[in-house]
Amino acid sequence: MRLVAGMVGGGPGAMIGSAHRHAMWLDNQYVLAAGVFGRDPEASANFAESLGVERVYGDYREMVEQEAGRLDVVAVVTPNDTHFEIAKAFLEAGIAVVCEKPLTNDSDTAAELVAVATANHTILAVPHIYSAYPMVRHAARMVRNGDLGRIRFVAAEHASGWASADVEQWRMDPARGGVATAVADVGTHAFHLLRYLTGLEATRVSAELSTLVPNRPVFDNATMRLTLSNGAPATVWATMAATGQEHGLRIRVFGDDASLEWHHEDPQHLTVRDPDGGATILAHGMNTLSDDSARLTRVGLGHPEGFLEAFANFYLDLADLLRGQPARELSIPTGVDGLIGVRFVEATLASQVNDAGWVDFPAE
Amino acid sequence: MRLVAGMVGGGPGAMIGSAHRHAMWLDNQYVLAAGVFGRDPEASANFAESLGVERVYGDYREMVEQEAGRLDVVAVVTPNDTHFEIAKAFLEAGIAVVCEKPLTNDSDTAAELVAVATANHTILAVPHIYSAYPMVRHAARMVRNGDLGRIRFVAAEHASGWASADVEQWRMDPARGGVATAVADVGTHAFHLLRYLTGLEATRVSAELSTLVPNRPVFDNATMRLTLSNGAPATVWATMAATGQEHGLRIRVFGDDASLEWHHEDPQHLTVRDPDGGATILAHGMNTLSDDSARLTRVGLGHPEGFLEAFANFYLDLADLLRGQPARELSIPTGVDGLIGVRFVEATLASQVNDAGWVDFPAE
Amino acid sequence: MRLVAGMVGGGPGAMIGSAHRHAMWLDNQYVLAAGVFGRDPEASANFAESLGVERVYGDYREMVEQEAGRLDVVAVVTPNDTHFEIAKAFLEAGIAVVCEKPLTNDSDTAAELVAVATANHTILAVPHIYSAYPMVRHAARMVRNGDLGRIRFVAAEHASGWASADVEQWRMDPARGGVATAVADVGTHAFHLLRYLTGLEATRVSAELSTLVPNRPVFDNATMRLTLSNGAPATVWATMAATGQEHGLRIRVFGDDASLEWHHEDPQHLTVRDPDGGATILAHGMNTLSDDSARLTRVGLGHPEGFLEAFANFYLDLADLLRGQPARELSIPTGVDGLIGVRFVEATLASQVNDAGWVDFPAE
Amino acid sequence: MRLVAGMVGGGPGAMIGSAHRHAMWLDNQYVLAAGVFGRDPEASANFAESLGVERVYGDYREMVEQEAGRLDVVAVVTPNDTHFEIAKAFLEAGIAVVCEKPLTNDSDTAAELVAVATANHTILAVPHIYSAYPMVRHAARMVRNGDLGRIRFVAAEHASGWASADVEQWRMDPARGGVATAVADVGTHAFHLLRYLTGLEATRVSAELSTLVPNRPVFDNATMRLTLSNGAPATVWATMAATGQEHGLRIRVFGDDASLEWHHEDPQHLTVRDPDGGATILAHGMNTLSDDSARLTRVGLGHPEGFLEAFANFYLDLADLLRGQPARELSIPTGVDGLIGVRFVEATLASQVNDAGWVDFPAE
Repeated sequence: MRLVAGMVGGGPGAMIGSAHRHAMWLDNQYVLAAGVFGRDPEASANFAESLGVERVYGDYREMVEQEAGRLDVVAVVTPNDTHFEIAKAFLEAGIAVVCEKPLTNDSDTAAELVAVATANHTILAVPHIYSAYPMVRHAARMVRNGDLGRIRFVAAEHASGWASADVEQWRMDPARGGVATAVADVGTHAFHLLRYLTGLEATRVSAELSTLVPNRPVFDNATMRLTLSNGAPATVWATMAATGQEHGLRIRVFGDDASLEWHHEDPQHLTVRDPDGGATILAHGMNTLSDDSARLTRVGLGHPEGFLEAFANFYLDLADLLRGQPARELSIPTGVDGLIGVRFVEATLASQVNDAGWVDFPAE
Repeated sequence: MRLVAGMVGGGPGAMIGSAHRHAMWLDNQYVLAAGVFGRDPEASANFAESLGVERVYGDYREMVEQEAGRLDVVAVVTPNDTHFEIAKAFLEAGIAVVCEKPLTNDSDTAAELVAVATANHTILAVPHIYSAYPMVRHAARMVRNGDLGRIRFVAAEHASGWASADVEQWRMDPARGGVATAVADVGTHAFHLLRYLTGLEATRVSAELSTLVPNRPVFDNATMRLTLSNGAPATVWATMAATGQEHGLRIRVFGDDASLEWHHEDPQHLTVRDPDGGATILAHGMNTLSDDSARLTRVGLGHPEGFLEAFANFYLDLADLLRGQPARELSIPTGVDGLIGVRFVEATLASQVNDAGWVDFPAE
Repeated sequence: MRLVAGMVGGGPGAMIGSAHRHAMWLDNQYVLAAGVFGRDPEASANFAESLGVERVYGDYREMVEQEAGRLDVVAVVTPNDTHFEIAKAFLEAGIAVVCEKPLTNDSDTAAELVAVATANHTILAVPHIYSAYPMVRHAARMVRNGDLGRIRFVAAEHASGWASADVEQWRMDPARGGVATAVADVGTHAFHLLRYLTGLEATRVSAELSTLVPNRPVFDNATMRLTLSNGAPATVWATMAATGQEHGLRIRVFGDDASLEWHHEDPQHLTVRDPDGGATILAHGMNTLSDDSARLTRVGLGHPEGFLEAFANFYLDLADLLRGQPARELSIPTGVDGLIGVRFVEATLASQVNDAGWVDFPAE
Repeated sequence: MRLVAGMVGGGPGAMIGSAHRHAMWLDNQYVLAAGVFGRDPEASANFAESLGVERVYGDYREMVEQEAGRLDVVAVVTPNDTHFEIAKAFLEAGIAVVCEKPLTNDSDTAAELVAVATANHTILAVPHIYSAYPMVRHAARMVRNGDLGRIRFVAAEHASGWASADVEQWRMDPARGGVATAVADVGTHAFHLLRYLTGLEATRVSAELSTLVPNRPVFDNATMRLTLSNGAPATVWATMAATGQEHGLRIRVFGDDASLEWHHEDPQHLTVRDPDGGATILAHGMNTLSDDSARLTRVGLGHPEGFLEAFANFYLDLADLLRGQPARELSIPTGVDGLIGVRFVEATLASQVNDAGWVDFPAE
């Protein structure tokens, strides 16, 4: 039986809502049955019909009321400043929530969402999708297996060019998305990937936030230093103003015995480097990969699976959780990860105020 | 309204059937409603249930009988030697058919399928999926726009390593898949891609077929020379025994004014080379690409779409055709393309018998 | 007539001395006529004979005394802590000096060397060789031509793996090479390359120095933030403990209108990225490159020239200067560049003491 | 003591003569002492002076007469149709000859040169330089070590774009360079590389020669099939009209147990592929490479050595031979290799006449 899903946000032209829908559909494990696709009821209804979504509502409150007991999960893909109230309402109704990142615009509300999910015995998941790529899963397994030895340094970057010129969007409005846009929009992805791959947390942060595009009212660039929980230093660079770069998510993890590199422009491969300077390139679909990676292979060696397949992997893992299976060691990010991401945004702002000085990262 | 689809073949473990299903599902334009998933009725029924397919049959004849008037299209994903009778039965019932390549094992039956589809005013489509990648579409548009000038040479190869050691499979059984396995299984893809990109046909062929894996009863390697319809020479190399290569589909088209290169290991990009030695790398999702490419973009720049999205592009274009829209200039391969592919296989065998001498390619 | 050169240091097994010699020889513009190749006179004499060096000395003082008026230039390729006295002696004798970086271990002595060179009307050059690669020269020309628009961000790294495990060498001895080894040994190269490409200076620095290889008595890793003279932020990462990386020098310069990337693993090419996400790859030898690059082409398109050719480019430009030609706009680094490098090392140490806080970079 | 070298040809603007000179100079093992640098005596003398060449002659006959007993070796870098008489004269005078490829324009004269060298107990070497790259040497060692198992297929190509438009040059004059220019100019390099890497010979050839640039009086494109001495098939593609390609020399060798790939655009690396689809990238300078490669390392890991270093490796190996050392197993190409190259050219022409049919390759 397919799971029954809803969506709030993601109207016509909203890329991220579209990505969630393809991800739900790809494996035929979800039926998208209900939704609110924007503030204009007629446009929302027309769009729902075009999608084959049977039940459409005027706002999320009505939807919660009508869908309690009918929906297995709802995807919240609205601007950041509305996540809290919407996600909270569904969680309180016992409906699992997939909430886009950053979870909220401040850690108090993020923590409250985590608490509400727990209190209602339901799931709050946060789609840091990159951690669902098969080769990222394999990399995380390699680190946990000790193949790299002690982790000594990590360099992560999410340096996209999508907003290297002026763009009009809620993400550039401090009131909607916060002022640390680079960190909130892309930096949290890089930071989560770092945590996911290494299994390490950050204990302190130093951040220099800056604005690369003239007159932009938010910070569109951030260079961050971290100290990790094993004492190793790390850097994270986040921007959406890296002129000409495509997506720009790339991570290198250096251990005493080997290092690895993954970048999103070629997600099918993982490069492992040995101390002698030789590199091994592992490919998705090789029959020698760990099960964490192999179980997420739809086609096979040489048949690239991309962003939507990774997104669908997230929804596959979520489906297992919704059906009551225990979480795997390498599974999907949840509300706690979302909360840590919000704290990361806040820590970078605190450091920025302090002339890029060190700020302790709040302990769990 | 979603289109109603069926499938014959593609039981548990069959990769290609799985690919067709994901491709149908990804955009939620098809419901897979009926099928025969193998020769064992109980296994077929269980598998259908796991897929959410409501109507399952003991064999294709029963399915044709019951589904006439109910199905919009059926995917035939059985071994080559069964394509003819199955596809013919559905076409005669007025049901559109997506038939895996090679269409059949001889050109007479392939031509008959084309004729049957025409006579029954229905569609016969052949999933040479690589032509549905956005950057392949853009490349084909560039060639048609004259950006490369006169085409002077083409080098295509599909040199995979999937069978570089012994494998047991119907493709290695001459009685099921024919003896020219390298040509039939992968060569036809490279040949179609060459035709699709250039808009040119072959007028003659020379082929050396060989067996790279000892004791294999079929030819697993083929090097082909073509003369194209504009007089230009071309080469096609096809094998599944290229030890260590992933998928190995790669094409370079050289014109008087520029050349282009595309390879399936990185399908998101297209390299265009200028006579001065500079290269431009175009990326899927750039807002400057032709509409042939842009209309097939689900996510956007920097978000890789892979094999299943290309497969889904095929099904999207097919959906337009099934709904009565006229075919675009750059659309999907049909029965005629499948027939040309079968003639290609036959021509290579004729050349092989003739010590790799030239064989005229049959005129349309 | 060939120029007459000498060398101090660079005995058997010393890689950098060997590189200087090949660079002198490649274009037949220098004869290496005199030298001190280590502290053991007999070994030095034997080595000199094997090199075809006619005049060999017991120490540099003797060499200065005997060679004044005979040598055009001497290469000083000894450990850092001896640069000052040796270079000073030759400069005072009116002999031009090529002194390895870092010029000295403190900025006072470095400034003194610059002054001594000026007072003696001779040349002090510092071999930051990477700035002599043709594609780096072309990149620098593009920036000066305004092809990138205003520079908004720079990310430079020299993250090598050459010392990712224990090594015994004077560079790991704080008394010989200083404690900030990562900055002095490789960071100064990345910093110079940044300055050379952009034409910008740093106005302040923040550095976190760390030790990645356990028990190593020097800092082998450094992450640096810079503020550039146009106000743009920049980062420099320097290490020799990046497990598995080859050489790891890579720079990306982001402008308002375009960005460019060059890395030393593939020095023949320069990638230029446009805001729409397309990339152009320029190759050494293309006939459309600037003269700054073209004049340094020995073979031609498709014939890689590597590290030694870049080194030889340095010596070619030096030969022009030694022969009295005026310096080109894009020429070789001199003592002032070496001094700025030493100040960079000092600034990172000052920042490190201050918990990675900002340190103003001394004005010229 | 440096070896004493001469040169015939290679006047101002002649790229290949320049490459020979840099290669002689790089390691300071040769002094270029005598030469004829073109047909104009004054220009030749001026050029010699600019090079520091002391003895310059009006023609090669005068040079032979005067230099017998003085020269260790002469480089013949004139157009193809003059190789025979020049090389023969020096060989008969007991002077070793480095003669550019193709050795001559017909196999009879090529064989005669080989015989003359033997009769005069001197060396005739042919600069197929690509076989002197360290990673090519390592690859050849791997094949000989059996690391790839039985060789099952080879795909070699030298598809350059240097003449993708009209060029005026003796190579495009059938009377000077022969009509099979693509084979003679670049195809012989690819063919030699194939032989060098695999240790196999060709037993038969089929070739289609064609002209890609309109109105060009020579064949500028050639696609060749070979049968190798172990029975394996192979292909060689040679052209100088591959619009936009840089240099385009690339080879892939497929064995039963692994495959390897090397291409000249990145000569520092060698890719080894395993049957499971994983790839290992070996880098020049790694301390785990064979001595055949390691002994040719001037700088070290991460410091690219390019075409001139490979050329200098050729001259280093030649120096060893000139000094009477026995040839290593993996050494430089000699006259016999040059002769086989000429036979290759002839075989392709014979095949072309025979409609690209098979032509037996002459046994040694």
